[in-house]
Amino acid sequence: MAKSKFEYVRLFESDDRCLSNTWIVVRIDGKGFHRFSTEHGYEKPNDVRALSLMTKAATSVMEEFKDICLAYGQSDEYSFVFRKETQAYSRRSAKLSTNVCSLFTSSFVYYWNEYFPTSRPLYPPVFDGRTVLYPSNQNIRDYLSWRQADCHINNLYNTTFWALILKGGLTPSEAEQKLKGTLSGDKNEILFSQFAINYNNEPAMLRKGTVLVRRRVPVAIPDGGTREKSQIVQEYSDIIGDEFWNENNHLLTLS
Amino acid sequence: MAKSKFEYVRLFESDDRCLSNTWIVVRIDGKGFHRFSTEHGYEKPNDVRALSLMTKAATSVMEEFKDICLAYGQSDEYSFVFRKETQAYSRRSAKLSTNVCSLFTSSFVYYWNEYFPTSRPLYPPVFDGRTVLYPSNQNIRDYLSWRQADCHINNLYNTTFWALILKGGLTPSEAEQKLKGTLSGDKNEILFSQFAINYNNEPAMLRKGTVLVRRRVPVAIPDGGTREKSQIVQEYSDIIGDEFWNENNHLLTLS
Amino acid sequence: MAKSKFEYVRLFESDDRCLSNTWIVVRIDGKGFHRFSTEHGYEKPNDVRALSLMTKAATSVMEEFKDICLAYGQSDEYSFVFRKETQAYSRRSAKLSTNVCSLFTSSFVYYWNEYFPTSRPLYPPVFDGRTVLYPSNQNIRDYLSWRQADCHINNLYNTTFWALILKGGLTPSEAEQKLKGTLSGDKNEILFSQFAINYNNEPAMLRKGTVLVRRRVPVAIPDGGTREKSQIVQEYSDIIGDEFWNENNHLLTLS
Amino acid sequence: MAKSKFEYVRLFESDDRCLSNTWIVVRIDGKGFHRFSTEHGYEKPNDVRALSLMTKAATSVMEEFKDICLAYGQSDEYSFVFRKETQAYSRRSAKLSTNVCSLFTSSFVYYWNEYFPTSRPLYPPVFDGRTVLYPSNQNIRDYLSWRQADCHINNLYNTTFWALILKGGLTPSEAEQKLKGTLSGDKNEILFSQFAINYNNEPAMLRKGTVLVRRRVPVAIPDGGTREKSQIVQEYSDIIGDEFWNENNHLLTLS
Repeated sequence: MAKSKFEYVRLFESDDRCLSNTWIVVRIDGKGFHRFSTEHGYEKPNDVRALSLMTKAATSVMEEFKDICLAYGQSDEYSFVFRKETQAYSRRSAKLSTNVCSLFTSSFVYYWNEYFPTSRPLYPPVFDGRTVLYPSNQNIRDYLSWRQADCHINNLYNTTFWALILKGGLTPSEAEQKLKGTLSGDKNEILFSQFAINYNNEPAMLRKGTVLVRRRVPVAIPDGGTREKSQIVQEYSDIIGDEFWNENNHLLTLS
Repeated sequence: MAKSKFEYVRLFESDDRCLSNTWIVVRIDGKGFHRFSTEHGYEKPNDVRALSLMTKAATSVMEEFKDICLAYGQSDEYSFVFRKETQAYSRRSAKLSTNVCSLFTSSFVYYWNEYFPTSRPLYPPVFDGRTVLYPSNQNIRDYLSWRQADCHINNLYNTTFWALILKGGLTPSEAEQKLKGTLSGDKNEILFSQFAINYNNEPAMLRKGTVLVRRRVPVAIPDGGTREKSQIVQEYSDIIGDEFWNENNHLLTLS
Repeated sequence: MAKSKFEYVRLFESDDRCLSNTWIVVRIDGKGFHRFSTEHGYEKPNDVRALSLMTKAATSVMEEFKDICLAYGQSDEYSFVFRKETQAYSRRSAKLSTNVCSLFTSSFVYYWNEYFPTSRPLYPPVFDGRTVLYPSNQNIRDYLSWRQADCHINNLYNTTFWALILKGGLTPSEAEQKLKGTLSGDKNEILFSQFAINYNNEPAMLRKGTVLVRRRVPVAIPDGGTREKSQIVQEYSDIIGDEFWNENNHLLTLS
Repeated sequence: MAKSKFEYVRLFESDDRCLSNTWIVVRIDGKGFHRFSTEHGYEKPNDVRALSLMTKAATSVMEEFKDICLAYGQSDEYSFVFRKETQAYSRRSAKLSTNVCSLFTSSFVYYWNEYFPTSRPLYPPVFDGRTVLYPSNQNIRDYLSWRQADCHINNLYNTTFWALILKGGLTPSEAEQKLKGTLSGDKNEILFSQFAINYNNEPAMLRKGTVLVRRRVPVAIPDGGTREKSQIVQEYSDIIGDEFWNENNHLLTLS
């Protein structure tokens, strides 16, 4: 079709391709989810429906982007790790972050009422996104460790904080005051001695967050028997230690 | 709270702040909407419900981002123009594009069934987003002219193409063949002579696209009378010529 | 010629083209020139030989890059302003900064002994360079005003500081102490009352810095008479006020 | 000192820090050196004085930047490899490229007459510079292999080309014609059969280029005996194969 004389404005777009041979992480993050979770009656300290919806939306993203080899989610955030060699969208940073962010958001709203009884949220929820590059295997592991350590720190705090309120009868500010300056051991002790909660027995999904990876799983075939098929599965593994990476060494190896 | 030893990975995030004193455009664009529109029974050549839903979603974005002074939409795309001086998200490019893109997408799904009878789309729709900078007033006007010229070219083509099919009984490939190499005048002539359609009488929304601006409008107050209030209004103006800009010269002036 | 299998590494180079329709400034700056000026016996507070050598080197740069419309220098720095529309090196940022910086440095060493009696400096002098973009005419004027205001502030200080030492017999630390917290008026007063120096009568080159622009000047032709020729001339104008820009309005107008 | 109201223009400078944990290469390249070498009577196909001057200038750069662990030069170019972890100039891309480029250029002019009989070149020579990032050890090795393969290809061509002219009596265009489409083996054969030159016996500096690394070398001490000192040494090793890297495995290891 005819081109207009205004077409020159395309020259103002910049080239934002990510450095080659580098891990690309797109992380999405709920905007104002402290308020959103309160207004939508999220259970405290964790709402399993909400976490499951997050994971459902993340799974949509992984189904669309075959070059995402692993995703990790906790609270109102999810990180998507693209293979080092991905050529998705020619590695253009904004294309990757906006597509992932849009599909995640779209799925979150779309699948909402599979997890919440109301047909839809009170208003359209928003997630922001960013693209970050990590050159080495150690760096990408440390990135994921950072997020999982963050999950641990926050969840231990929140579990204790809400136990003090819901079971201990403290007000939020009393609970906050009580936890000020405490270390992990102190919180474990409060949970155990006051509420008979062994934190290590809390559900792994809450303590560790959710890891999404592709696994070959057997699926039944019509005429009996099974065949293997690649499927996205959720796990609640520790991804800070070496064990997970030894068992999944294909993830960090060039394909 | 305690910081983990993995925290260093934050240093890998890059600073993507947009050049100061420059117009920032975030444009969102439907991903695979040719297929999406077919699967959802969009009317051809234009589906007013779909365009209205796009404008509803764009209005949500403008309500959230006060520094968007104008938005322009057509087909499955919308451009949002931030004031030159905006400090929204410290002018960080990815923050702007992903937030706008996420809120647009979220609203599109959220408000879907106000425009379409089915409760929700067949699958989660996706929009990509990009941030582009324009230094001068002429550049930003040319950008908007480029999009409106694109709207005109495509809509004239589509109107003729679908008239040939729906009213002229041609197959799509016959219609495509007939339009090959035709100029605007030729298409106007086909519409007029074969289908008694005067293209200039087609609805302005389809020919010009939708402009969203803020206007002070009178609103009724409880005890009678009216007061003025800033409101986002939709118009179908020509934004290529000078008239619109002369009448809205506050848009291009520093605030 | 044959290409090697290693050629893929070229893909790691990034595209650093400057935003279109934007003023490009390349500023070079002496590295460690406080020490350099001492070791080379620069006269205090100003060494006219050194300033002239800077201007000679800057003139070399302007002769090479026809798209530099103005250069401004003071102390050990020079700013080169490229026309908004320049396509030099496809507007690639690193190409512009390194070429300007290299040619400036090369000329500085090359022409050294036209200004200093010794055949060459004690060691190779170094300048760094940077590329900065300015979208509007006001911005580029403010940039130049910033550098000229800096020149004024530093030169008034240095003139007073060295008068106190060289003519007033103070030690450097006594002079520094005396000037602590003083305003411009105070320094003018010290110069006038103690040393009978009217600062405004100091040479314009020292107070204002050096402006390089292209002017059409008459040149003699062999058979008598003159013709006009574009030539780079140095001036010591005030470039903060409007007068210079009114008289040179071609500089800020699209060519 | 007082700040002026124009200071805001500093906000227009962008942050160009290089991705962490990534090899940083600054490559400088002679501008118009085909012409420069002709005008300065460089010997053909190689001028050892010119190559030695390049290496002298590169050594100056390595003496200044302790984080350059290796430099590789051939023809009119030199590549400087900064350690992955370098924090020199906070890893700012333009600072690194302009400082390296300026010091190289400065040294080239400064040391000129140690290598050429004339006191200085006919005009100031210029080098451009660029910064490129390489994430993995394989990538940085492949980068260096690319440059050394380029050296080999060009030097074999030039050696044969100039033998045909200087010893074979061909004109440049006849020589060019004769070499069109020839492979390495053909050129080796021409050299051997027509000019009794065994290419592999040509000086390694010409065939391989120059590698600069730091080595601990024994230095005499005043009262007799020796002590070890880190010194920049030049070698003409093959850096494509594994041997060099096995023998210098400290280069690719985190320090």
